[in-house]
Amino acid sequence: MDLHILDHRLRVTCINKNGLEMYTHPLIKLIFLRHRTRCKFFSLTETPENYTVVLDEDGFKELPPSQHLQVERSTWLPLNVVSSSNTSSSSQVVGVTKIAKSVIAPLAEQHVSVFMLSTYQTDFILVREKDLSVVVHTLAEEFNLYREVEGEFVPVRSQGLSDGLQKNGREVPHSTVHPVLIPKNQFCVMSLDPDTLPGVATTLIDALFYSNSPKEDGSPANDLECIKFFSFSLIDGYVSLVMDTEAQRQFPVDLLFTSSSGELWKMVRIGGQPLGFDECGIVAQISRPLADSDISAYYISTFSFDHALVSLSLCHMKQTAS
Amino acid sequence: MDLHILDHRLRVTCINKNGLEMYTHPLIKLIFLRHRTRCKFFSLTETPENYTVVLDEDGFKELPPSQHLQVERSTWLPLNVVSSSNTSSSSQVVGVTKIAKSVIAPLAEQHVSVFMLSTYQTDFILVREKDLSVVVHTLAEEFNLYREVEGEFVPVRSQGLSDGLQKNGREVPHSTVHPVLIPKNQFCVMSLDPDTLPGVATTLIDALFYSNSPKEDGSPANDLECIKFFSFSLIDGYVSLVMDTEAQRQFPVDLLFTSSSGELWKMVRIGGQPLGFDECGIVAQISRPLADSDISAYYISTFSFDHALVSLSLCHMKQTAS
Repeated sequence: MDLHILDHRLRVTCINKNGLEMYTHPLIKLIFLRHRTRCKFFSLTETPENYTVVLDEDGFKELPPSQHLQVERSTWLPLNVVSSSNTSSSSQVVGVTKIAKSVIAPLAEQHVSVFMLSTYQTDFILVREKDLSVVVHTLAEEFNLYREVEGEFVPVRSQGLSDGLQKNGREVPHSTVHPVLIPKNQFCVMSLDPDTLPGVATTLIDALFYSNSPKEDGSPANDLECIKFFSFSLIDGYVSLVMDTEAQRQFPVDLLFTSSSGELWKMVRIGGQPLGFDECGIVAQISRPLADSDISAYYISTFSFDHALVSLSLCHMKQTAS
Repeated sequence: MDLHILDHRLRVTCINKNGLEMYTHPLIKLIFLRHRTRCKFFSLTETPENYTVVLDEDGFKELPPSQHLQVERSTWLPLNVVSSSNTSSSSQVVGVTKIAKSVIAPLAEQHVSVFMLSTYQTDFILVREKDLSVVVHTLAEEFNLYREVEGEFVPVRSQGLSDGLQKNGREVPHSTVHPVLIPKNQFCVMSLDPDTLPGVATTLIDALFYSNSPKEDGSPANDLECIKFFSFSLIDGYVSLVMDTEAQRQFPVDLLFTSSSGELWKMVRIGGQPLGFDECGIVAQISRPLADSDISAYYISTFSFDHALVSLSLCHMKQTAS
């Protein structure tokens, strides 16, 4: 299999709920007005706590600094596994489950923090730029590694790093067991043709920027057992959307598409307290048992918590895989 | 003819060019998300100086106070002339020209300041609420007056106001002669079905909120002899747009419509210095000679300057009128 180190230098940021209004102008530009920005990697995820925005340096410079914006200090690089056609895997699973054993587990063993961003199209594994040599060394056995340079994929060779592995011999600490939350709502993972983005602009703007303001028509407040989670990404021209079935009903049925099975996903939110960016192995903890059972799962990290989306159609997937 | 005093209590406000970003959130709500607001009268006009926003009290409360927002302190009421079917006028002129002699001139004689807002559908004459009794007394001879109360139009009788006319006998001051500017660009006055507003959302958002930011594709800067002027209004469910032909080219041709003649308009901007809100008679000065010659004209007041839009197809209009 091939592993691509993509040519995006990313920042992971967080906008307070109270601060969204003042970031509406740059965010709408980044989402809808591609001719006005060079940003090629943009992801916005609303959770009950805040808005996580992951974007490349061209996008980042659109966000004015303020007390409402937190910025993780590292530069992150997105990795992407490309299945070769001659892959021997017979599994039909999608999402992070596919890469749990080949990527996630080995990086966790090397204490490399990862920030996961599953999309409709693929799964991005974000690693810190400073960890790149460890990443390359760790994954070089399993993958052919290529680094994207000005649109071309150039093979990468692992350089001598005998003293770099295992973080200079530090012992792997015990993994923390984090509490999980399983909200009631069900989610769908969708896409749309980027050329039809204008057709859902007002609906998408409403969902992203106004869904917390009270409706004048007196709709009831959200069920407290449901969680607010809405994710939009526009990466290299591909749009991906994750939303619950209630939000989905606001969108025109003819523009958004999902996989042919149209399946729904159940969320597992990881972390009772914000997780931070330095703990390693959380994705591995979650994805290993899913991989063992061939259960499809998407995985979306945010500034405060991690979110696994687990297929509801487990039986269907098991049958397909067998 | 009937004159309606509409049931909107309006504020006239102005947003600095630098302050637009922080007002993007409420303005997009007022323009595109009607289900989230009770605002029924909204107008936004960009000029080279600033953004003039005229809106009712439900809309006004959406605008957070800041140093970027100026608010004229009065409450204004919109008047609207409704042509009866048995009108004797044979004139085909549109816009402010129609009401120059019957409304504009008499109010100017009584020193009543007016703020004009022509739209595709009609012309709103905004007067200060405190001037209403003078307005009613002045126009009662020429018009049947009705005041809108909860959707019903109730006849209004002029009350004894012998001491109110001529502003208690004050002498009419000499009118100031203001310099005018006639920019090179040509304008169109258009409308669209409000249900199709989502279809032009990204184009309209781009024009309203991003047209001052440099394009990444290296388009040239605006010609200095052309003026930036873009007006959007959504009043009682009717949309009106005024923009120059260059801006018009960005919009899909199938959604916007204009009058059958598809005519273009030349702008006359009145005022070398900001006009303020207390001088009377400016609209009268401009509209009287146009009315004498049956020349159609729209008229849009903004926070700093007044703008008359004069039909380019004078010959056509003269022929129609004869």
